[in-house]
Amino acid sequence: MISIGIVGAAGYSGVELIKLLLNHPEAEIKKLYGQSSVGLRIDEVHTCLRNLISMQIENFSEESLSELDLIFVALPSGQAFEFVKAAYNNNVKVIDIGGDFRLKNIDDYKKYYKHEHKAQELLEKAVYGLSEWNENAISKAEIVSNPGCYPTSILLALLPLLKNDLIDNSFVSIVSYSGTSGAGKSAVQNMIFSEVNENVRAYKVGNHQHIPEIKYYLESFGNKSVNFSFVPHLLPATRGIYTTINAQLKKGVDNKLIKEVYSSTYSSKPFIRFLENSIPEMKDVAYTNFCDIGFVVNENNSITIFSTIDNLVKGAAGQAVQNMNILFDLPQETGLLKWNKNMKLQSK
Amino acid sequence: MISIGIVGAAGYSGVELIKLLLNHPEAEIKKLYGQSSVGLRIDEVHTCLRNLISMQIENFSEESLSELDLIFVALPSGQAFEFVKAAYNNNVKVIDIGGDFRLKNIDDYKKYYKHEHKAQELLEKAVYGLSEWNENAISKAEIVSNPGCYPTSILLALLPLLKNDLIDNSFVSIVSYSGTSGAGKSAVQNMIFSEVNENVRAYKVGNHQHIPEIKYYLESFGNKSVNFSFVPHLLPATRGIYTTINAQLKKGVDNKLIKEVYSSTYSSKPFIRFLENSIPEMKDVAYTNFCDIGFVVNENNSITIFSTIDNLVKGAAGQAVQNMNILFDLPQETGLLKWNKNMKLQSK
Amino acid sequence: MISIGIVGAAGYSGVELIKLLLNHPEAEIKKLYGQSSVGLRIDEVHTCLRNLISMQIENFSEESLSELDLIFVALPSGQAFEFVKAAYNNNVKVIDIGGDFRLKNIDDYKKYYKHEHKAQELLEKAVYGLSEWNENAISKAEIVSNPGCYPTSILLALLPLLKNDLIDNSFVSIVSYSGTSGAGKSAVQNMIFSEVNENVRAYKVGNHQHIPEIKYYLESFGNKSVNFSFVPHLLPATRGIYTTINAQLKKGVDNKLIKEVYSSTYSSKPFIRFLENSIPEMKDVAYTNFCDIGFVVNENNSITIFSTIDNLVKGAAGQAVQNMNILFDLPQETGLLKWNKNMKLQSK
Amino acid sequence: MISIGIVGAAGYSGVELIKLLLNHPEAEIKKLYGQSSVGLRIDEVHTCLRNLISMQIENFSEESLSELDLIFVALPSGQAFEFVKAAYNNNVKVIDIGGDFRLKNIDDYKKYYKHEHKAQELLEKAVYGLSEWNENAISKAEIVSNPGCYPTSILLALLPLLKNDLIDNSFVSIVSYSGTSGAGKSAVQNMIFSEVNENVRAYKVGNHQHIPEIKYYLESFGNKSVNFSFVPHLLPATRGIYTTINAQLKKGVDNKLIKEVYSSTYSSKPFIRFLENSIPEMKDVAYTNFCDIGFVVNENNSITIFSTIDNLVKGAAGQAVQNMNILFDLPQETGLLKWNKNMKLQSK
Repeated sequence: MISIGIVGAAGYSGVELIKLLLNHPEAEIKKLYGQSSVGLRIDEVHTCLRNLISMQIENFSEESLSELDLIFVALPSGQAFEFVKAAYNNNVKVIDIGGDFRLKNIDDYKKYYKHEHKAQELLEKAVYGLSEWNENAISKAEIVSNPGCYPTSILLALLPLLKNDLIDNSFVSIVSYSGTSGAGKSAVQNMIFSEVNENVRAYKVGNHQHIPEIKYYLESFGNKSVNFSFVPHLLPATRGIYTTINAQLKKGVDNKLIKEVYSSTYSSKPFIRFLENSIPEMKDVAYTNFCDIGFVVNENNSITIFSTIDNLVKGAAGQAVQNMNILFDLPQETGLLKWNKNMKLQSK
Repeated sequence: MISIGIVGAAGYSGVELIKLLLNHPEAEIKKLYGQSSVGLRIDEVHTCLRNLISMQIENFSEESLSELDLIFVALPSGQAFEFVKAAYNNNVKVIDIGGDFRLKNIDDYKKYYKHEHKAQELLEKAVYGLSEWNENAISKAEIVSNPGCYPTSILLALLPLLKNDLIDNSFVSIVSYSGTSGAGKSAVQNMIFSEVNENVRAYKVGNHQHIPEIKYYLESFGNKSVNFSFVPHLLPATRGIYTTINAQLKKGVDNKLIKEVYSSTYSSKPFIRFLENSIPEMKDVAYTNFCDIGFVVNENNSITIFSTIDNLVKGAAGQAVQNMNILFDLPQETGLLKWNKNMKLQSK
Repeated sequence: MISIGIVGAAGYSGVELIKLLLNHPEAEIKKLYGQSSVGLRIDEVHTCLRNLISMQIENFSEESLSELDLIFVALPSGQAFEFVKAAYNNNVKVIDIGGDFRLKNIDDYKKYYKHEHKAQELLEKAVYGLSEWNENAISKAEIVSNPGCYPTSILLALLPLLKNDLIDNSFVSIVSYSGTSGAGKSAVQNMIFSEVNENVRAYKVGNHQHIPEIKYYLESFGNKSVNFSFVPHLLPATRGIYTTINAQLKKGVDNKLIKEVYSSTYSSKPFIRFLENSIPEMKDVAYTNFCDIGFVVNENNSITIFSTIDNLVKGAAGQAVQNMNILFDLPQETGLLKWNKNMKLQSK
Repeated sequence: MISIGIVGAAGYSGVELIKLLLNHPEAEIKKLYGQSSVGLRIDEVHTCLRNLISMQIENFSEESLSELDLIFVALPSGQAFEFVKAAYNNNVKVIDIGGDFRLKNIDDYKKYYKHEHKAQELLEKAVYGLSEWNENAISKAEIVSNPGCYPTSILLALLPLLKNDLIDNSFVSIVSYSGTSGAGKSAVQNMIFSEVNENVRAYKVGNHQHIPEIKYYLESFGNKSVNFSFVPHLLPATRGIYTTINAQLKKGVDNKLIKEVYSSTYSSKPFIRFLENSIPEMKDVAYTNFCDIGFVVNENNSITIFSTIDNLVKGAAGQAVQNMNILFDLPQETGLLKWNKNMKLQSK
């Protein structure tokens, strides 16, 4: 049984994580740490948790780490430093669901996150938790830096083609639409229902903090540079990210080759559903850890690639649990996949 | 392990049931029966099931029942008769999620469902599957008739007060709002997104087929007659029912007494969350088998009672699984409740 | 041409009012007054107004009233006093869209609005602007107090029956659902999209500030007391109120009589659409000043009455313009009704 | 006064057109033609029209054209031929809102619309009704072929850059999201609320019937060939199209030049709102004939261009009325723009 503490349980990633861990056969939530919510029971903060868990939220203390095997940190950017440090110093493994340890370049961090990095010395210890592409490193990590929601949907879709040299990397168009839960639970005027419903808007065009993350890991896992535009949009839906990528194919690349590349890349990955002949729908992945990927080759020898995830699951808490499973040498599906004897899963 | 067949897996209750059963430790889906979808794999019909279950849909045959312990029937009204008969005749237990065996009076059946009842001889065998109020009878049943979604939300909220004689039964107002999944997956013009979004409409006012069901079981479990108006509305949401009941309190009934009655009625029921001091929200029960109940006593000595369920779970597939658990002598929560050591559940 | 000033143009009622007035042949917006938005152009505050109006928002000054015939005040409760006073003292007509002058009893005001009334001396001057029921008084008013959105939908539906003594006034159940724009444009956590979408919740049960307003004007226009419960709910939609009223009919009251009463009450009222044989839908009144009313007589001799309005139009800015038309002796439809030669309107 | 007949008033474009024409000072609806709805009043088909227009729908007859100056045809593809022919033969002007006369190449028509073209002889008479780019030809036309909704949003955004040679035309990525009203009012399973809500899906990728239309008019008005991918998506919203275009800029093209090109192209066009420094939001154009256009130049010397329209107004009925105004030598804004003395419009 893995003894777990959660920092930042009051947000949407936090409650999703709690629900997943309650359903996990090898995990036990031992501590919930908070700030403004200290003293409240977690089911007072998230009323959907009534009858499921009634643990009280407490102040973080370094001593209490001795009871734990792992902490998850689910905080807004800039707030994870002290908790990750404390965990590292106390030999407690840590998975940071936020963005504080994803970028290796602190100038990029400062430029895109708009504040200083306060734990630079730990950056080289942090392993990027894109489970399907970094499993080996994750399994030995002390600090796992969980990927952003947009990067997860984009990297999983694009890396097989990039790494296998199937697309022209001189210009790739990436357009993503996200549900509102990705923006968190804060009271912000342009996130109220009346401003989002029956609306679409692009935002942070050209300066979204996920741009350097996408670029770095495309190049690091894909082994080549790529010139892309990433345009995030807000969608009138609560959950889900839908990514549409347009690129030109290299000469001679055809449907068959593309299928082979995706199939071989992901055949043993339980959470990637590569759709050979259809286009993903966002609702098919809702409340799951799946990433559905599909593609169409166009007449003009370009390719359109689609991927969709639940931003709170595969894009946050679910992938974090998947990484916990890797860290603790459990099958990746543990606690994440509803499955039984009707299906032989391609598993770890 | 309970061997299970499902008739009508192509609808919304069907897919919900499959997801629940895949997650159930004691259940194994052995057969999926269909009509127009025969020959297809179930994950072709419901693409969300890809990688989870790939069983083929087949024609129903009485012989195949010999492999099964239980069948669930999830069909539109008027279509369950032959399947329930076949199960009964072959000593296979059956849970009918549809409305064909709920009404004891076949004239009411004909009046509200607009067609003849074709299995009248089995009506007395059918046990009404309101789990919290009929557990004993359900546990011995051959045929369980699963309650309607509206009746579930209404009966659970109103019965404690009615049975304990706390409200004036001469006039009770019941107003319910339902998400669209309750209307099924058929292509119907007034259910397309453009007709439902940014809209509300009441429908079947005074002639909804759930009216006689509500009346019969209010009186049967509540032990007294009640005069009520039930007004169903369609809501621009996919899942959930929200019921608001206004009634006058009997003299001398106060807040304290009402709380005592609800608390004692439901203290040992794992899926009823009685909120002593707050008003339910529909989203808190989404994707769960919970029914959340709350109330407010008004200055004019009337009471407003609220209840909310997920129409596809507690209002259909979830309560059906709960009834399966009762039938097979399993704890009611089996396969339904995400829970672990953090919570001592009030359980069977 | 009526010269108009608007106080509080930054909110949802404000922008709706501006759009209506831009389309009004006899109205000219001369001044937009604000506080935090002073110095901005109105099309910077409401980007939907680009190319339509580019007037700058300025500080209110009593002197500037000399250019005006009328001011509209569209502010949160407690903030209208000084503007209404200034208008009254300068002989400028004023229509207060907010709630500060609706209640005649300042104890009720304090109890429900939670602050002191600061213009008690003007209460007797304020005329309640329920256009269809108070036209004569409105036409001579100095101060019009525009009705609340819920009261508008409820009073218009219930008054004909109450006044004509068709229903049992000992217990009436009123259940209303409102879109989110009724809650205004402020950043409030439980109004963000993720908290409202796929959700329903009742709120302010038993203590909503519209309760005393409904009670006072039911009794004042209906000429008898009535005991009712009013339960407001929040709906995952931006615009619209849907009200469902259950009441018991007096003996001998039938369908025919009810139709006659509604028809005769509203035959000359251009914005009331009484549906003899159908149930209103919320989307039919969206972006219009209509109130659609329908009813069903149930088998148990009770009646269910439905009414629906657009909360920002008939429930706020539209009725305010209707009242302006009455004040300035224009046909009520002026600037509000899209109409032409195809339709002979029943008009003033 | 222009005497008007409408063929196909039962759909969403039809009702939108009726509402616009009712508000138009120079238009009079004289005839509504239908098929399955003949004999019904139009306000029975569209209940939102009650009290606004009660005209009966009748069978089309060539004789009745003698009373008319203009007919609008709002029918699914393949059904407009006979009506356009009849109008042409009787010297009645006609605006076809559907897709039957947009493509000049009948092989393309057959390939993308999946049926034969039955009025080939009129193709050269049909003038493409992209108001801002073809005003002169429209003003003299007998037959106006109103643009598709997607092409409208794309052509208006892209043509200024293409024509002025600012972008690399070797690869342009066009991603559009549309509300559901674009799919019409038919009962189709994958358009029911439960299938669209909380969902996104791309559709008709590579074979949407608007692809040849976009290509032909990009090249015809833009005066050069362009290689593009167009990917349409369905959005959980009723109204609106949001288009996001990624392209590489030609060397030396900067922000300033792009602004100059857009500004000069559209300075005298009342319905194009070019946003120099901000990104369009879909809700800002809802229920209007505006097209809002914005752009961002990215660090990698690419440009992202955004445009948004209401698919039923600028994308259908609104642009049709704008074209009617051009045909009958009225200011383009007539009946379309809520405006008054507060705004000096840049007008015809």
